Amino acid sequence: MSVPWTIFLLGILAVLAAIFFAWRVLRIPATQGAASPEEGERLAEISGAISEGAMAFLLREYQYMAVFMAVFGVVVGLLVDWESALSFIVGASISILAGFIGMRIATLANVRTTAAARTSIGRAFRIAFNSGAVMGFALVGMAVLGLIVLYYALGAIMGPSTPEHIMEALAGYGLGGSSIALIARVGGGIFTKAADVGADLVGKLEENIPEDDPRNPAVIADNVGDNVGDIAGMGADLFGSIAESTCAALVIGAVASFRYDMAALLYPILITAVGIPIALVSTLFAWANHERTIEPALKRTLIVSTVLMGGVMAFVTLRVLPETFRIGTATYSNLGVYYCLLTGLVAGMLIGLVTEYYTSYRWSPVREVARASETGAATNIIYGIALGHQSALLPIIFIAATVYIGYTFAGMYGIAIAALGMLGTIAIALTMDAFGPVADNAGGIAQMAGMGPTVRRRTDALDSAGNTTAAIGKGFAIGSAALTALALFSAFLVRSGVDTLDLLNPIVLASLFIGGLTPFIFAAITMKAVGKAALDMIKEVRHQFATIPGLRDTNVLTAESLKVLREGGSLTSVQANRLRSVVDKAFSSGEELLAAVRSALGRTLNPPSDEALLKVVNLGLVMGKPDYRRCVDISTKASLREMLLPGAQVILTPIVVGYLFGAEAVAGVLIGSMISGVVLATSSANSGGAWDNAKKYIEAGNLGGKGSDTHTAAVIGDTVGDPLKDTTGPSLNILIKLMAIISLVFAPFFAHSLRLLG
Amino acid sequence: MSVPWTIFLLGILAVLAAIFFAWRVLRIPATQGAASPEEGERLAEISGAISEGAMAFLLREYQYMAVFMAVFGVVVGLLVDWESALSFIVGASISILAGFIGMRIATLANVRTTAAARTSIGRAFRIAFNSGAVMGFALVGMAVLGLIVLYYALGAIMGPSTPEHIMEALAGYGLGGSSIALIARVGGGIFTKAADVGADLVGKLEENIPEDDPRNPAVIADNVGDNVGDIAGMGADLFGSIAESTCAALVIGAVASFRYDMAALLYPILITAVGIPIALVSTLFAWANHERTIEPALKRTLIVSTVLMGGVMAFVTLRVLPETFRIGTATYSNLGVYYCLLTGLVAGMLIGLVTEYYTSYRWSPVREVARASETGAATNIIYGIALGHQSALLPIIFIAATVYIGYTFAGMYGIAIAALGMLGTIAIALTMDAFGPVADNAGGIAQMAGMGPTVRRRTDALDSAGNTTAAIGKGFAIGSAALTALALFSAFLVRSGVDTLDLLNPIVLASLFIGGLTPFIFAAITMKAVGKAALDMIKEVRHQFATIPGLRDTNVLTAESLKVLREGGSLTSVQANRLRSVVDKAFSSGEELLAAVRSALGRTLNPPSDEALLKVVNLGLVMGKPDYRRCVDISTKASLREMLLPGAQVILTPIVVGYLFGAEAVAGVLIGSMISGVVLATSSANSGGAWDNAKKYIEAGNLGGKGSDTHTAAVIGDTVGDPLKDTTGPSLNILIKLMAIISLVFAPFFAHSLRLLG
Repeated sequence: MSVPWTIFLLGILAVLAAIFFAWRVLRIPATQGAASPEEGERLAEISGAISEGAMAFLLREYQYMAVFMAVFGVVVGLLVDWESALSFIVGASISILAGFIGMRIATLANVRTTAAARTSIGRAFRIAFNSGAVMGFALVGMAVLGLIVLYYALGAIMGPSTPEHIMEALAGYGLGGSSIALIARVGGGIFTKAADVGADLVGKLEENIPEDDPRNPAVIADNVGDNVGDIAGMGADLFGSIAESTCAALVIGAVASFRYDMAALLYPILITAVGIPIALVSTLFAWANHERTIEPALKRTLIVSTVLMGGVMAFVTLRVLPETFRIGTATYSNLGVYYCLLTGLVAGMLIGLVTEYYTSYRWSPVREVARASETGAATNIIYGIALGHQSALLPIIFIAATVYIGYTFAGMYGIAIAALGMLGTIAIALTMDAFGPVADNAGGIAQMAGMGPTVRRRTDALDSAGNTTAAIGKGFAIGSAALTALALFSAFLVRSGVDTLDLLNPIVLASLFIGGLTPFIFAAITMKAVGKAALDMIKEVRHQFATIPGLRDTNVLTAESLKVLREGGSLTSVQANRLRSVVDKAFSSGEELLAAVRSALGRTLNPPSDEALLKVVNLGLVMGKPDYRRCVDISTKASLREMLLPGAQVILTPIVVGYLFGAEAVAGVLIGSMISGVVLATSSANSGGAWDNAKKYIEAGNLGGKGSDTHTAAVIGDTVGDPLKDTTGPSLNILIKLMAIISLVFAPFFAHSLRLLG
Repeated sequence: MSVPWTIFLLGILAVLAAIFFAWRVLRIPATQGAASPEEGERLAEISGAISEGAMAFLLREYQYMAVFMAVFGVVVGLLVDWESALSFIVGASISILAGFIGMRIATLANVRTTAAARTSIGRAFRIAFNSGAVMGFALVGMAVLGLIVLYYALGAIMGPSTPEHIMEALAGYGLGGSSIALIARVGGGIFTKAADVGADLVGKLEENIPEDDPRNPAVIADNVGDNVGDIAGMGADLFGSIAESTCAALVIGAVASFRYDMAALLYPILITAVGIPIALVSTLFAWANHERTIEPALKRTLIVSTVLMGGVMAFVTLRVLPETFRIGTATYSNLGVYYCLLTGLVAGMLIGLVTEYYTSYRWSPVREVARASETGAATNIIYGIALGHQSALLPIIFIAATVYIGYTFAGMYGIAIAALGMLGTIAIALTMDAFGPVADNAGGIAQMAGMGPTVRRRTDALDSAGNTTAAIGKGFAIGSAALTALALFSAFLVRSGVDTLDLLNPIVLASLFIGGLTPFIFAAITMKAVGKAALDMIKEVRHQFATIPGLRDTNVLTAESLKVLREGGSLTSVQANRLRSVVDKAFSSGEELLAAVRSALGRTLNPPSDEALLKVVNLGLVMGKPDYRRCVDISTKASLREMLLPGAQVILTPIVVGYLFGAEAVAGVLIGSMISGVVLATSSANSGGAWDNAKKYIEAGNLGGKGSDTHTAAVIGDTVGDPLKDTTGPSLNILIKLMAIISLVFAPFFAHSLRLLG
């Protein structure tokens, strides 16, 4: 079968797999496994609020995205060409669609996971895993289908054209994916941390109520944030990486000697397509029946996927690519290309493992940070920052080695292939990434619904395994972003016709410094954005506690509602006495209260009318119900507002530099931003992860445990780490990739540069 | 007069000026102005302890330096040549000597400043200023004399040789200066922060005694640290900058068409020499008679020096350099060189002002950090980190612009000249830098001696002005380090014969990433080094409080000593009664206790024998006297031990990379380290400065003032900032410069590289 058809059919296979996994999740009734109909109703209500909040955010975000796509699409059309603009719109649309699917299934799976945890950890694991797989396969399938269909569509539109021109227009696809990733990652990152910090600072510290308590107005926003930031954001991020590194490899390959050999030309898309059946086989290895076998199950899946990919691609590469080929004046071999791919694949795995080492409390680095909390918050912070910086050592060496090996075996094409190799296990990596937030949400729902210790222990075990694999996924995302950015940079040079980039050229040297500065400025802006958005949330939560009567006692049957019931004349004295024992008693949810009222009334021969009962309960509930929706709204508005400045920085920097100073200045800015950006991203993510787990290590009963001074110090570190690990760090991935793809797409525009200092 | 003689005589002038300023300080008796002989004795005792501690540290440090100089000198001799080794030894020796002079005069001037503050703020200011000037002029004078004498000595030793070879051997001088700077900055930085953090954490938090309380065993070490870190460290740092950028300019100039024109060849040394009489004139503008005129006086001096330098150098440059000259294939003009110098001069000033803006609480950035403390330590830290990152924006733009302008007007030579231009006001900059710690020490001594509010208000005013100018000086040090490193990088390429450095060369690309990582690893190591050294200090201070009987009540006359006096039979009942009222009363110092005992006994007709009196007081003192010396010793040992790892990192990185992978890999590492290093250094220094001043802003009575929760949060930020601003940040300057000069000196050795990946 021809390569294009193979790619197309494998893409269809992925979409079918996604549908299959979605069916496996959705065929289970939402609350199957709940202990009682009341518990079921409670679960439905909470998960409904989360789902509704997530949709509300998405709809608002889509308005922004629509405006952005329209405006930026026109800019691309005018400054570059309309074919690129078309690719841009297609890429952006697919990214949006993939994010939507991922979030939709996650918000449907979380409650099913919680309910299933009532009966079996194995079933709960499987539901969360399957929902992750929906996202993983849907995204990869659509990415591959989008690329192959768009390639032929562009070929038809552009008529007789060189592969080079088609591939350059196709690069708009990567731009679309990455632009949406910017909005999703930065906006989502600000949303989730504003809600998290706001909920914690007022709820835990001021009102003294536990985490995930339903009385906290920001608690739903916090759970929405997990979906918004970790699922939609991560999905868009990795979709961007796939789209971009494929485009980079295609652009470079389009000037190779094999450019009229369709199979060889489309080899970069084939890599990702081949990953699809391999990922499908790997999912068969994801089974666990005990709390302790969840993490091994997830890791086993990833390892199987990596090994199979390494083996199958040897065969595919040697068959599809010519034995030797030329790019420019250099000659490379297909075996060399395979080595590049293998290097990327292995490096991604290693970077993931190093990330886990530095952020899990099973190893000494995090324990050292925890011990540093014994002398106070300041030493905790100092050790945490130092850990972050140090943790970049091995990943950077792996990346540098990959760059060197990739370049040596196949020039700039080799770097792009290494990036695709690293992304070869993307379907499984995404499955694992999306698994985490679903498990996290499941735990939150269990807590809010007051489902007791067994269920919570099980959801905690799922969450903990999810955190570990999320750490691996984060390292992976940074590593692939670095290689993707380098691949795009190479493609940019190819398209700009820059053959050598001399560091001794003053404009290159000066722009390297400006580039190195860029990630720091971006980090400063995003960190403060979280601070400002959190402040909005703090104000709203304080306002609700101050103005909503009885909010602190939401689930208490008030004496007033009892009076209403009596005035209705429908109470016997026995009923009245029984009800009195319920008055002022606190319940963990409104539903629990309702059940207590029913049981107090129901055992008499003269039950009150349904209307009266409803009135009582409503009175009790309406009086103290927090306005979750307003909090979601606040976080939505604040995150979209605060996103504009960092977004503008990323998009405008390469365009303005290119227009004023030309392509070589852009190249300097790109390399400079990668050099400091990759280290800063790794450091931010790992410092944040380490602080989080140092706190958890203490909460597990070490060094004085929860409530000790050491714990208080560790909580401060954790709060500092929140924006670093969930907003700034991940957004820096987008920064370096997006600046590079913008440069690649706008390369023809830079030819009209003013060359002010040229 | 010929240029060499002019340089020589101006160098002599600087040394004479230093002697003159030293005489002005030392002709005043140490405690002149003290309110009483007792106060005088007290002052002498405290300042004696500081001086003794500083000398103890220096002597130990010199042993390390001697071993290092011997070993590394032999390494240079064997791997490069013995002429470079000679230059290395000379440069290192002068740096040590300059640091010694600066610290010696500072430890003699601090007590004089305190005593003078009793009578007049103007006199106190003048003493502190003059002591700073000793350091400023001695260092610049010796730097210039060393260079010119060594140049002729090398000429004589090497016989008939090209200017190129002589200048390359002379580069060892810069290596010597910078190596000592590494030890002084890193070792001193760890010393001062270990003492500071140790004294604060036990003294303030555990024992609840105020800052600078004489009962705190670490208090002397803390004051010693100010001298060790801020005077010896800063002096060695800037001596390194001068020596290195001069050597860089000389090496590049030695391949210019004017290389046999002695005046033009030595022009780089002449720049610094011309700065000497200008600085001397500027010191005439340093007068202040009121607390509010101190800071303007210091700034006025700097501005006068900058303006005069700009004017005089126009004349000198046009006269000394040929109207046009060639380097390689490019032609430049003397006017162009002057523009480079002027750009550096102005950029240095601007970077200093930006630094002040971001670290002084008169402006909004620091106030924003202070306000962020209202929601706790975490938001304070987040805003402080963001401030640091943001504060790098303008300095980096200024540096990039200077690089571009310098290169455009005179190629790599222009960058070296811009660095020298930035350092043109070095004598005044150093004077102001050394002024700060002297004023700081003077305040500490006043506090320890219990000298009352007026004196302390005056020393606080001096200290505050010193802090502002120190901020300017820090920005200046970073800016000049960046340009110096670039100049050295250029000289390295010239010496290595690298004409183009292609970013598309895989080894260059990979090594750029490794280079960008270097400053982060160094920052991690130095931050943890401070943590570990502080832990040693905390243990010792806790140990002393636990084991020395009565330490907490040092200055309390014990009942036991009273008994001793009575048993001596020399007390009348009136005396005994009077003494009883003194028993168990606390005094702020041993001397105050002595005075109280004297006054209780002295008014009777039958005074006790001197022996008896001495016995009482000694008993009271000996019982509770902290062992200051052991704390100084602990800080000394810990700092020298913890210095080894970061020191080895800096020295070995370029040598190992060069030996394994060759000159181009070294070039990549150098540029990479500059790109992220300059931003990280600026960010670290300014975050730390901002946290410090946000705390001071709150202590000045804003946002709740001292003792509020907001203040507690700000104190945590300040402690996090301590190692960042006084150890890591300043040491990063050395990192980028030292790696560059090592590369320059070892360039011939890299020709024998294994070229493992070449």
